[in-house]
Amino acid sequence: MVFWSNRRGARQELPRLRPRVAPTEVAKVDFTELVPDPVPFLGQAAYIQLEFFESLSKAVIGATSMHSKERLSAAAGIALRKHHELIAELRRLGVEPDEVMAPFAPATDRLGQATAGADQYELMLGIHVTSGMLDDYFARLAEGLPADLRTRVRSILAAGGIGEVLDAELRAAIESQPGLADRLALWGRSIVGDTLLIARSALRGSEPAERAGDRVEPVFTELIAEHTRRMDALGLTA
Amino acid sequence: MVFWSNRRGARQELPRLRPRVAPTEVAKVDFTELVPDPVPFLGQAAYIQLEFFESLSKAVIGATSMHSKERLSAAAGIALRKHHELIAELRRLGVEPDEVMAPFAPATDRLGQATAGADQYELMLGIHVTSGMLDDYFARLAEGLPADLRTRVRSILAAGGIGEVLDAELRAAIESQPGLADRLALWGRSIVGDTLLIARSALRGSEPAERAGDRVEPVFTELIAEHTRRMDALGLTA
Repeated sequence: MVFWSNRRGARQELPRLRPRVAPTEVAKVDFTELVPDPVPFLGQAAYIQLEFFESLSKAVIGATSMHSKERLSAAAGIALRKHHELIAELRRLGVEPDEVMAPFAPATDRLGQATAGADQYELMLGIHVTSGMLDDYFARLAEGLPADLRTRVRSILAAGGIGEVLDAELRAAIESQPGLADRLALWGRSIVGDTLLIARSALRGSEPAERAGDRVEPVFTELIAEHTRRMDALGLTA
Repeated sequence: MVFWSNRRGARQELPRLRPRVAPTEVAKVDFTELVPDPVPFLGQAAYIQLEFFESLSKAVIGATSMHSKERLSAAAGIALRKHHELIAELRRLGVEPDEVMAPFAPATDRLGQATAGADQYELMLGIHVTSGMLDDYFARLAEGLPADLRTRVRSILAAGGIGEVLDAELRAAIESQPGLADRLALWGRSIVGDTLLIARSALRGSEPAERAGDRVEPVFTELIAEHTRRMDALGLTA
């Protein structure tokens, strides 16, 4: 996907290949310096929300108590609303959302399959981990969008509630089922890599993106730190 | 489920068992004479919408084109909104929606399983037939609710769009796949009985309900007539 440019201009005078900067040497990442092309940005973000919606729907179907169905269906509704609001932004830009989302479908579908797990609990943790990391990631990237679009996208992505529902559902399950915590701790750890690959795919392909890749490295570190906090909240070792 | 009463009063003076009136002899059904108890009415209607949401989510997951996913996810969103608006009415009445819905879950889940079919097309037709008949049925029953609740429930149930999406999806599939029409015509016919059982379950159990059962008989005839029109619209023999 070639959709990154540098707000400061193309800088053709810079060497096209420069030595990779080790992540630790990059002091501060200014995400507003990274300018995602709005169309593919919205397309990928929108399709990812559709994937979360599908996974949350599976969790609704698999829920055994009415109370869980209620909470999870509310969470599914939040993901679906984000999806539809993001494709409304694509329409506003005069493009056909289906065509824009299509290139992101295969990798996103694979993430959904890879994180669906073996049962209801692994499914829920899979959504908790991937949506926790990716919602946060896309919200940060959105900082580089043009001002008016940035405001709207920020508001769309800020809609919370999914993490709270999954945290509450998982917490109740872990408390009532001895041994589940150990299994879920392992499972949560195994998902992080797949999720970071999707985050990285938003930067792949262009020369400026390669450079951007260096600058966003610390962001991945932060994403993992927040993942650790989510796992800690559930009493799981990340 | 005992939740029917007669707005005109209990009429204890009437014989408790009277000869069944043949449906053809009942000239006109005044649904406003039937007074559903709001709580179980809302509980059953709400749970049925949750079932439609789950079935539509399965259709989103099973859809192979992005365009179909878009349309079906919008339809799933409509069912989910109806569900949440109906449980909001239950909360307004001071009851716990989970407890009110629970008794309706087994039969509704069975309907969902019985109408899920063998593939994406049978699944979509199953939703089209059951939601077409039951949305219409519950909208008619809602006429007997207290005035303010009736207005809100009528507005909740009137939210359209699901039938249009399923009609468009099924029409496209039938046009492009020779032989599908015959299979779906058979399938559609086989669903009607299961759906009517659910409709009937809303009337079962009480003496007044038994009498109501006679009076609503023509409504079932109308439900089937509308089912026939939906099938005709798809070029399927009902």
